[in-house]
Amino acid sequence: MTEQLRICMLGAGRVGRLHSGTITRYVPGAAITALVDPATEILEQTGNDFEINGRYDSLEEALEKASFDAVVITTPTFTHRHLAILAAEHGKHIFLEKPMALSLAACDAIIEAVEHHGVILQMGFMRRFDPDFAAAAQRIRAGEIGQPTMIKTLTHGPGLPPAWANDIRTSNGMLAEVTSHDFDTIRWLMGSNIQRIYVETANFKGDDRGATAEHFYDNMFATMRLESGALGNISGVCPCDYGYDARAEVIGTKGIMLIGEMRGQALTVCINREQGLVTPIFRRWPERFAWAYINEIQGFVECVRNGTTPRVTGEDGRWAVAGVLAGTRSFLEERPVTLQEVFDAENPAPWLAGE
Amino acid sequence: MTEQLRICMLGAGRVGRLHSGTITRYVPGAAITALVDPATEILEQTGNDFEINGRYDSLEEALEKASFDAVVITTPTFTHRHLAILAAEHGKHIFLEKPMALSLAACDAIIEAVEHHGVILQMGFMRRFDPDFAAAAQRIRAGEIGQPTMIKTLTHGPGLPPAWANDIRTSNGMLAEVTSHDFDTIRWLMGSNIQRIYVETANFKGDDRGATAEHFYDNMFATMRLESGALGNISGVCPCDYGYDARAEVIGTKGIMLIGEMRGQALTVCINREQGLVTPIFRRWPERFAWAYINEIQGFVECVRNGTTPRVTGEDGRWAVAGVLAGTRSFLEERPVTLQEVFDAENPAPWLAGE
Amino acid sequence: MTEQLRICMLGAGRVGRLHSGTITRYVPGAAITALVDPATEILEQTGNDFEINGRYDSLEEALEKASFDAVVITTPTFTHRHLAILAAEHGKHIFLEKPMALSLAACDAIIEAVEHHGVILQMGFMRRFDPDFAAAAQRIRAGEIGQPTMIKTLTHGPGLPPAWANDIRTSNGMLAEVTSHDFDTIRWLMGSNIQRIYVETANFKGDDRGATAEHFYDNMFATMRLESGALGNISGVCPCDYGYDARAEVIGTKGIMLIGEMRGQALTVCINREQGLVTPIFRRWPERFAWAYINEIQGFVECVRNGTTPRVTGEDGRWAVAGVLAGTRSFLEERPVTLQEVFDAENPAPWLAGE
Amino acid sequence: MTEQLRICMLGAGRVGRLHSGTITRYVPGAAITALVDPATEILEQTGNDFEINGRYDSLEEALEKASFDAVVITTPTFTHRHLAILAAEHGKHIFLEKPMALSLAACDAIIEAVEHHGVILQMGFMRRFDPDFAAAAQRIRAGEIGQPTMIKTLTHGPGLPPAWANDIRTSNGMLAEVTSHDFDTIRWLMGSNIQRIYVETANFKGDDRGATAEHFYDNMFATMRLESGALGNISGVCPCDYGYDARAEVIGTKGIMLIGEMRGQALTVCINREQGLVTPIFRRWPERFAWAYINEIQGFVECVRNGTTPRVTGEDGRWAVAGVLAGTRSFLEERPVTLQEVFDAENPAPWLAGE
Repeated sequence: MTEQLRICMLGAGRVGRLHSGTITRYVPGAAITALVDPATEILEQTGNDFEINGRYDSLEEALEKASFDAVVITTPTFTHRHLAILAAEHGKHIFLEKPMALSLAACDAIIEAVEHHGVILQMGFMRRFDPDFAAAAQRIRAGEIGQPTMIKTLTHGPGLPPAWANDIRTSNGMLAEVTSHDFDTIRWLMGSNIQRIYVETANFKGDDRGATAEHFYDNMFATMRLESGALGNISGVCPCDYGYDARAEVIGTKGIMLIGEMRGQALTVCINREQGLVTPIFRRWPERFAWAYINEIQGFVECVRNGTTPRVTGEDGRWAVAGVLAGTRSFLEERPVTLQEVFDAENPAPWLAGE
Repeated sequence: MTEQLRICMLGAGRVGRLHSGTITRYVPGAAITALVDPATEILEQTGNDFEINGRYDSLEEALEKASFDAVVITTPTFTHRHLAILAAEHGKHIFLEKPMALSLAACDAIIEAVEHHGVILQMGFMRRFDPDFAAAAQRIRAGEIGQPTMIKTLTHGPGLPPAWANDIRTSNGMLAEVTSHDFDTIRWLMGSNIQRIYVETANFKGDDRGATAEHFYDNMFATMRLESGALGNISGVCPCDYGYDARAEVIGTKGIMLIGEMRGQALTVCINREQGLVTPIFRRWPERFAWAYINEIQGFVECVRNGTTPRVTGEDGRWAVAGVLAGTRSFLEERPVTLQEVFDAENPAPWLAGE
Repeated sequence: MTEQLRICMLGAGRVGRLHSGTITRYVPGAAITALVDPATEILEQTGNDFEINGRYDSLEEALEKASFDAVVITTPTFTHRHLAILAAEHGKHIFLEKPMALSLAACDAIIEAVEHHGVILQMGFMRRFDPDFAAAAQRIRAGEIGQPTMIKTLTHGPGLPPAWANDIRTSNGMLAEVTSHDFDTIRWLMGSNIQRIYVETANFKGDDRGATAEHFYDNMFATMRLESGALGNISGVCPCDYGYDARAEVIGTKGIMLIGEMRGQALTVCINREQGLVTPIFRRWPERFAWAYINEIQGFVECVRNGTTPRVTGEDGRWAVAGVLAGTRSFLEERPVTLQEVFDAENPAPWLAGE
Repeated sequence: MTEQLRICMLGAGRVGRLHSGTITRYVPGAAITALVDPATEILEQTGNDFEINGRYDSLEEALEKASFDAVVITTPTFTHRHLAILAAEHGKHIFLEKPMALSLAACDAIIEAVEHHGVILQMGFMRRFDPDFAAAAQRIRAGEIGQPTMIKTLTHGPGLPPAWANDIRTSNGMLAEVTSHDFDTIRWLMGSNIQRIYVETANFKGDDRGATAEHFYDNMFATMRLESGALGNISGVCPCDYGYDARAEVIGTKGIMLIGEMRGQALTVCINREQGLVTPIFRRWPERFAWAYINEIQGFVECVRNGTTPRVTGEDGRWAVAGVLAGTRSFLEERPVTLQEVFDAENPAPWLAGE
């Protein structure tokens, strides 16, 4: 049997636990040899649950005391620049959760460090590894629905993200934290960059849920024109409460393709004819994308082992960030914004409190 | 505009109301000019609801006092022989609800009267007029799934039928009253008569619901070999409580065809992620077969008008009765029974109290 | 039986044939006593097919020579103002196909004539009579999904409309001719008027199909903010080729509701395991909205008979036209446009060639 | 990290490859240290594909030369008795593919050896580990649909099994090789043993496919009465060609539950409105039960590690064999057969050529 890839998991919270569970239970090719979190209680809990013995306060400490080949970064977005660059400098391969970073400058710095130090960087856009979405991409590329002319994607997440993640000053808000996936999906499935974007937002639940940051929104439509001339639309709702929902529809000159579903299990019950048929919904994203989470880590392990380029790179991460910044500017200024404006701007994201 | 077909509706109860509503609301080519029911209250109620002025105690009275071209017979099965023959003798065309009659002798007598008096007889197997089932029949005939090798059909009805209709002595029970449709569907879709049949029954709710007749059953499987060598299976449940359910699956040498659905409306709601997606079910058969009920009456009107043969005839009704009799004998004697036995028997249905 | 409503059908083409078929076959309460079309061949064809004897070149001629209580207007949009006002002046009730008219001024003139002459005006927004959409509206009103926060609707039509209907100068283009229904659906389901709108368009098939009008588009997203603070999105594709597609998704503070479907029949076949399951799609709108077309005419007949207000009025028609005008201005000027701008403008639709 | 369970895989063919792939790719807790197959070419191919170095002609050789804790038996049914007993005698835990064996005597001998030598035996009824079926079992147990009254299950397999597996003399035929799963599913979901069974078979493709064994059949219905009074039905088709199909419907006194689906992926395409919507089907069983295959091996590893009883035991395997024997006798003798007859018979399976 081949040597296992030794992983340092950065972040022992929700996403860190998800990846720890996936690796421990379903990825024979990798082992978590170090776990990092400054929050002691969470560190111990996750360490115990997944039998990870090496536990550290910081990446710096782990680098000093533990042996590993790669990091999986699941910490808040504003820490990505520092952690990814530090890992790269120590020759560690990087699996980086979305969004890549807060700013284009941070994305550029990460990409530069990765290239300079010759490590592999894979972005955590797991939809590219989902069987439904991956088959869709392949079939669109093969021309099955003709030239793609229009795409609608949606991400509706059940629960309110933490305060830092719903405040545009510290995270770029829902566009970044929830619908980064959609920005990547649109570029990927349509084979074209976004040219301009218009965003409308609404806030219905903020006050009730204690999300009081200025410009907080929980409902959002982003409408785009792509460089290819095609159109795109993202629907974002968070918290939506009713479950986790991630679907897409693509129109081409020859027809339509529908990707994904809401149904969480092939199990339907009817015990009340006034109510009708009841079928489970995906409650949380780990259920919806269980295969994608396994596949993306398996893919990362293979890329590191074989020195091949990941299916989703820093460049892809950077484009999603650019879309998020243009979209945020759009709803703040109530007008369509081109990505070129963002690339050319001296300060593309004046609302940010810093990174 | 063409002259309307004048109809005498026999029976003002549940099924009579259904056909009265269909004709009054959706069939410009026909008008109900007479309504017959010995139960005065029901007669008045249905007469008022559908604005039918001619109301009578009996077909005999209606024949004497009213003008009409055809009868629609919706009364209990044991009355079919008398009413159908009387109508035929007076030159009235006949739309006859299923089951055709209790015995083969009664079927024969009706068929003979119809032929002798030159009237049109259409059986109420409305599935033949349902868009899903009708398209299925056409596509099977066209060879799309190859030679049909196996069929499963089901009828699960929500409520307990009246006492006469769940007692095998007065109605032949569920096999006749509920799954007559399935017997006809199997012959029709498979293009073959039944050769032998084996039936298992179970009784779970009888006592609780007051269905105390000997041999009462509420769950039933009928397994058949057809003359073509293909196999058939009917699943019958009544009362099933959860809604009205009528579906079929056909296997052919080339593939499979699934016909019908449980979903009553293209409307799905999720407001509780622990519960999931909720979609209406067909609650009662008028919802499931709304188009079929319209189409079968429109078809009857056209046959009468043009003197053409109905899509479903007395011969078809007789075959369904033969299947019911063989099936009933099967579960009473706990063995497979051939239809030939039924055709040859001196008394094919000794359990019957008379007709 | 009650007296039939006598109808003069204006327009013997595609939509005129649809309504003629519906009325003749499924609406006992009405009869078409006059048919009007200046195109002789079409007039004869439709007249023969539906056995309508009174055939005329113009409404003027029909008013002179025929007896009728109401008109059904299915002619091109630019004729609506003249025909509706003429009908009202002669005391004829009006069923008017969408879009109501080209301009707000025309809508106002029609509404005024209708009020002045005391006739009934019902707009042909048949989705309000579709069982799925109607049940959705009722359940949203009842609060089932909480306060509505977001809606997505779509209309994708299979074939290229006639030249006048895809040129914004003569018809306001796809926004009007195809997605008028969506504008009405959004207002109706969300219980709120549109406040502002942003539209992106794309043209992929125009050249190949001979649609050479300036500003022709075949793919369109319209994104809206409603007065209630909720958001709306329409996706329009025409010609989409793959079938007729009309669906909606509504998000509320409590959950989600999905309305409608693509599947045209509950009949699934698999005869090739590399291809998979195959199910019919709605090919044309008469299939998708068969019940809605019956129900809306039955509803119109009842309103005329009982003097009640139709479920969908001239006011509703006017709001859809306002949305269309704002949306058209939006994509021409590449900015969000408020409906107030349209209401306040001296010339709200400078692109129009006249009405 | 815990020590890996060392597995000797018996059989390098189709099923051996499936389990080898599952273990190698998705089960960190186990490693295949020995592979056994007398067919050298297959042994080398599978050994190479999954990087298994220890390769042997026979279990005897492997026991002598290799170190392992458990065996996974995927060889033809008639070898199960010998291999399972030999493994037990050497203290190896056993994962045994279905059907357990050809005869009840063989089942008894295996169970006795397992008990005597204190090893763990898990049967390969993977449906018990499928998320849909497992959730169904749990919800039925919890009383959600009331008392179960009726069950229909089906297994339709795409391709013709090898000659030994479609000849009742060497394998008990399709009832055993294909629908063993259904016999287990019925007992498990209904919580009751089978009391009697009636089977009808048909043969449509045998001649064309070279399946010339006497009593060969490719279509089969098995109808049962359970000890609880409930009814059961199995539909078996093999080869069905159109894909792999495994579903169940359970009726209870309160309602209905539908388990499983045909759709292989949440990806629907329409590019031809005359054809309609096209969705992938499960082509082969590894696709349909991918999670179940992972979960059952993970479950086996845990049972061995913790010394707990597997979810599906030798006793379960034996009941399925008893059902198969009664069913085979039923169609040979054209009558219902009780399981008691099989248990009491001197020679319960006279058609068998020996084991």
